[in-house]
Formats: sequence, structure tokens, C-alpha cells
Amino acid sequence: MMASPERLGEFELIERYFAPLALPSAFGLTDDAAIVRPSPGNDIVVTKDALVAGVHFFADDPPDLIARKLLRVNFSDLAAMGARPLGYLLALMLPSETATRWLEAFCNGLAADQRRLGGGLLGGDTVSTPGPLSITLTALGEVAHGDELRRNGARPGDTVLVSGTIGDAAVGLDVQSQRVTLAEKEADHVVRRYRLPEPRGSLGIALAGVASAAIDVSDGLAADLGHICDCSGVGAEIHTVRVPLSAAVKDLAATNPDILERLLTGGDDYELLFTVPPARLETAWEAARRSEVSIAAIGTITTPRKITFFDATGREIALRRSGYTHF
Amino acid sequence: MMASPERLGEFELIERYFAPLALPSAFGLTDDAAIVRPSPGNDIVVTKDALVAGVHFFADDPPDLIARKLLRVNFSDLAAMGARPLGYLLALMLPSETATRWLEAFCNGLAADQRRLGGGLLGGDTVSTPGPLSITLTALGEVAHGDELRRNGARPGDTVLVSGTIGDAAVGLDVQSQRVTLAEKEADHVVRRYRLPEPRGSLGIALAGVASAAIDVSDGLAADLGHICDCSGVGAEIHTVRVPLSAAVKDLAATNPDILERLLTGGDDYELLFTVPPARLETAWEAARRSEVSIAAIGTITTPRKITFFDATGREIALRRSGYTHF
Repeated sequence: MMASPERLGEFELIERYFAPLALPSAFGLTDDAAIVRPSPGNDIVVTKDALVAGVHFFADDPPDLIARKLLRVNFSDLAAMGARPLGYLLALMLPSETATRWLEAFCNGLAADQRRLGGGLLGGDTVSTPGPLSITLTALGEVAHGDELRRNGARPGDTVLVSGTIGDAAVGLDVQSQRVTLAEKEADHVVRRYRLPEPRGSLGIALAGVASAAIDVSDGLAADLGHICDCSGVGAEIHTVRVPLSAAVKDLAATNPDILERLLTGGDDYELLFTVPPARLETAWEAARRSEVSIAAIGTITTPRKITFFDATGREIALRRSGYTHF
Repeated sequence: MMASPERLGEFELIERYFAPLALPSAFGLTDDAAIVRPSPGNDIVVTKDALVAGVHFFADDPPDLIARKLLRVNFSDLAAMGARPLGYLLALMLPSETATRWLEAFCNGLAADQRRLGGGLLGGDTVSTPGPLSITLTALGEVAHGDELRRNGARPGDTVLVSGTIGDAAVGLDVQSQRVTLAEKEADHVVRRYRLPEPRGSLGIALAGVASAAIDVSDGLAADLGHICDCSGVGAEIHTVRVPLSAAVKDLAATNPDILERLLTGGDDYELLFTVPPARLETAWEAARRSEVSIAAIGTITTPRKITFFDATGREIALRRSGYTHF
């Protein structure tokens, strides 16, 4: 039989796999709980996600990638609030056939990403399940009191901006599932963007107290802009020609203009979509330069509660499925 | 077909079931994350547990009791650190056959207990699973900086104390599984203690900065005292005659002296087991009076790293299974 985490005691599991990931304030994971000390004047920001094998990932996906994507997606939520990651708690529900080398690879993925992105393990629970492997992660961050970025602060006249490039992950999923073919280099780029998003932590932190509203693009640019507009009671006009695209996606769009809708409605970009009042625009550009993340102004917040997308000729584009329908 | 949470959208699920439980700083659960503001000078305490149907509870257990026990067990961990509950995050992994009335009862249980115990919902995730119903809960509390109770602070000469009564939950489980018979009133008492533990929040908060070490009794008095002694590098001498028992359990022990081991090694008491240095004993008793929780001194911390239990005649008792074996 393969070595199984179930055959290790709780003490050995913690000692071997989890203690090396733990922050000092988790006390070696031997106490009832861990301590988190926000810096003076800072508030705590918390978010939590659940993943189930067969629903949110494939059971044979590389375990380090599952771990890294889960951590990154949660840290992306912190970034969208303007918060710096402090740590995370992890609950693992493991089927009895889980191999210890699965757990080892999973923890190696966490170790690699927490070195890059900050934070560390604060606690959690490992239990057995007769069902599919399931994982939940709670991430904690900190932001200066009152500087947190919300979805409800966009005001008419604010500029709409987005970080990085949009649509890579949607195309990456299409390439991975062989619905779209790209040259090897371009294919690698978009598939990597789909499998391993890059949370925009430094940009989010720099935008705290600067942007009027922010969200991370997980449901797709159109849907997530809809969330900001819904919460803020406003609308927006977006010039699609200004939406930043990677070289790989630009090539594809040049030969296939129909792909625009896919780029605007596909999810998993994990870029920051945010709005900035005119008086703070210069500060926002400076924040982006400082955090070394490219940003692009793609439109304007409007009073009418309607989102309009314009093409290069100034004509209105009707999206068949925007990912959100209500106002 | 029965109404199923799966057939409701995420927005409707949140609006109908979760928003009524949410704290104001969770922004109606519409943002990427929630804010937690510890009082000035306080640190955050975090803990997380996972439950799987068929492993940790029965799928047909009353959903409000599942919810309340999960919240209470986590708040008990906060109490053991001396922390006041601030809020919690919840991840629900629901099989497609879950009825909306299950979810409604579950949320009613949370509502009832958060009114009594403090805190409220800060966020989370609801996803579907092809496996058994699974739940994880992350609880956040606060404690004055430096006053948190740890397991590693017990010193030789400290008094060992425990709150409430010990063994009710173990006997309650025996009664529920028909291994033990009690009169109706006594049976009700112990079964209730097993099904619905009472976290000792007010006592834990009052002991912050007073006790030298603390733990909540979940693995059994002997095992959890072992955890304190392990972490602190000490031993203990316990006078079992001083271990506080409820009237129901006292009756049982009078006719069946063999039950003592079961009381000391059965788990799920969720009482606080703590140590206090001689100079702070009076303060600890005053803290217990203020919090209206009874406490009892049951022994002393010793230098030799060995735990000894004495019976009423001063004879050493050998426990066959203490729940912990190593030093």
C-alpha cells in the first residue's frame, strides 16, 4: 500500500507537512488557535474559498498547482480590497487513498508561493472524507483603517482602469481543452495564465485609499464591472479597443474579431478592475508605476445605470452573454 | 423535486440565508472580503475546523445542532486562548440533494447561537459536492496584546483547575448509544451536554493574562492535561476526588467505580483546563466568580514530566488509555 496521510497521526502530519509552513504566531500549530497582529492603525481583511475535486479542479491536477491557485485566488481577493496578505488557514478533507506524496507536493506549492507572495500558515484542520478531496482556505490580510477598497464607491466621471491583460485565461482554457490552437509560445503563455493566476497584490496595496472602487476579475470583465456598477448604483462606457491584450490574444483577435466577446466575458483573469476619481488619477498612475504593474484606462463611469461597450469605430457592441443580466 | 440550494443562484442564496447572519463589516457579503476591526491594543485569534457527514456527524442529525456545535467548538478554542469572539467564515460543500429547509435550519442554529455567544458571519463560500455534506468554519476573536493563553506556560507549583463538570459528554454519548442507562432527567442532562457543548467564553476572557496555560477539554481531561504538560515541559499530580462531577455522573460513579477512567479520558467536555501560579490564584477565583462559571482546583504542576492521578485514598491510579502516550 502507498503511504497515506491517514496512517500518520495528527501530530506527525503537522510536524512533517504543516509546521514548516507555519508563521511564528501559529506557535508550531500546537495551540488551540493562532495570533494575528495587524500593524497599528490597520484592520484585518478576511476571505474564504472552497474547492472540491471533480467540481473545481481535476483529481489528477498537479497538487502544487491546486495549492498555488487556491492561495493566489484568495490573495487576489485581498488585493481587490487593498490588503497585504498576513496568513491563511487551511482545511483539507482527504480521501483515504490520498498519497503522502500528494500532500508533500501540495505543501511544496504553498511553500513556494508564500515565499513569493507573503503570509504563512496560521492553522487549520486535516480530516478524512469518504467523498472527493476537498479544500477550504481562509486568507487574512491587513489594510490601513478606512483605506479598504470596496465595490460601492464608483461615481459618475470616475475613470475605469484595469491591470495587466484581459482574456488570457479564457483563451488558455480554450487552448487547454483544444477548442483553440495557438503557436507553442503563445499557447504556453495563455495556458499558464489560466492555470496560475498572478494576484496583483502590490498594485492593490498601492491603490488602497486611492481607487474609489475595485474588484478582481474572476467572473469576466463585463460581469465584474457589472458588480461594481450594481453596488455603486452607476453605469459605465467602455472602449473595447483600449482593453489591454497580450500579444498572443491580440494575434488571435486580429484573425477572429468574434473573439472579443469571449475576452470580455471569460473569467479567471485575476486582474484588478478599478475606478479612480479625476483628482486622484495621477496618484493611481504613480501607484501602478511604483508597483511595476501595467494599467490601462478603458472607460468612464456614467450616471445612467447601463454598461455600454464601444468598438474601435465608436459603434455600440451588444454582448450576448455578459455573465450578469440584472440591474 | 424538493427545493434545493443548488437551484438558487449565489446571489439569492446569500440574500436569503447568509446576509441575515452577516456583520455590518461584511458589507452584506457582496464584496471580495470582509473587514475585522480589533479594538485598540488587541490582537486577532484565529482557528478553523472541518466536519464531514458520516465522519464527524450523521447526515440526518438536526441541522441546527450541527451548526451550533460547530460554532461552539470553535468559540471554545477562542475561549481557551482568552479571546472574545468577533465573527466567523463558513464554507458549505452541499450534495445536490440538500433541501433548502436543511440550509434554513442550519442558518437558524447559527443565528440563535451568535445572538447568545457574540460574533456574526464575515464571509465564506457555498459550493456543490458529489460527496458527503462537508462544512468548515473559521472563527476570529480578539485578545489584549500579550494576554493570550497558551499551552506552554505551566510551571511547577502552579495549581491545575478545571471549569464546570467533567465526563458528562462521555456519559451522554454512552447513553445516546444505549451503552449506559440513566433516569430520564439525568439522561437528558448528559445527552444535551454531549450534543451541545457550552463554550466557556466569559471565563476564558476573564482568565486572559491571569492563567499561565489553558486548553479546552476536547480529547479528554487526561489527554488535554498531557498537551499542556508536553508543551510546558512539566508534569502534574491530579486528585481525582476533586474533579468536579455533575449529579447525574456522581450517581453513576457511586455504583460503578470503574467509570472514573471513562470520565477522565472521554472527550467533548469543552470545559477549560488551566493552570495558575500561586500569586494569581485569588485573581483567578475572582475571575470565575465574575464570569459565573464554577471552577475547581484538581491538582498541581510538578517538575517531573509525568502525570499521576490519585484516588480518594491517595493511591496512584493507572489509566489504561489516557488518550496520549508520549512524552
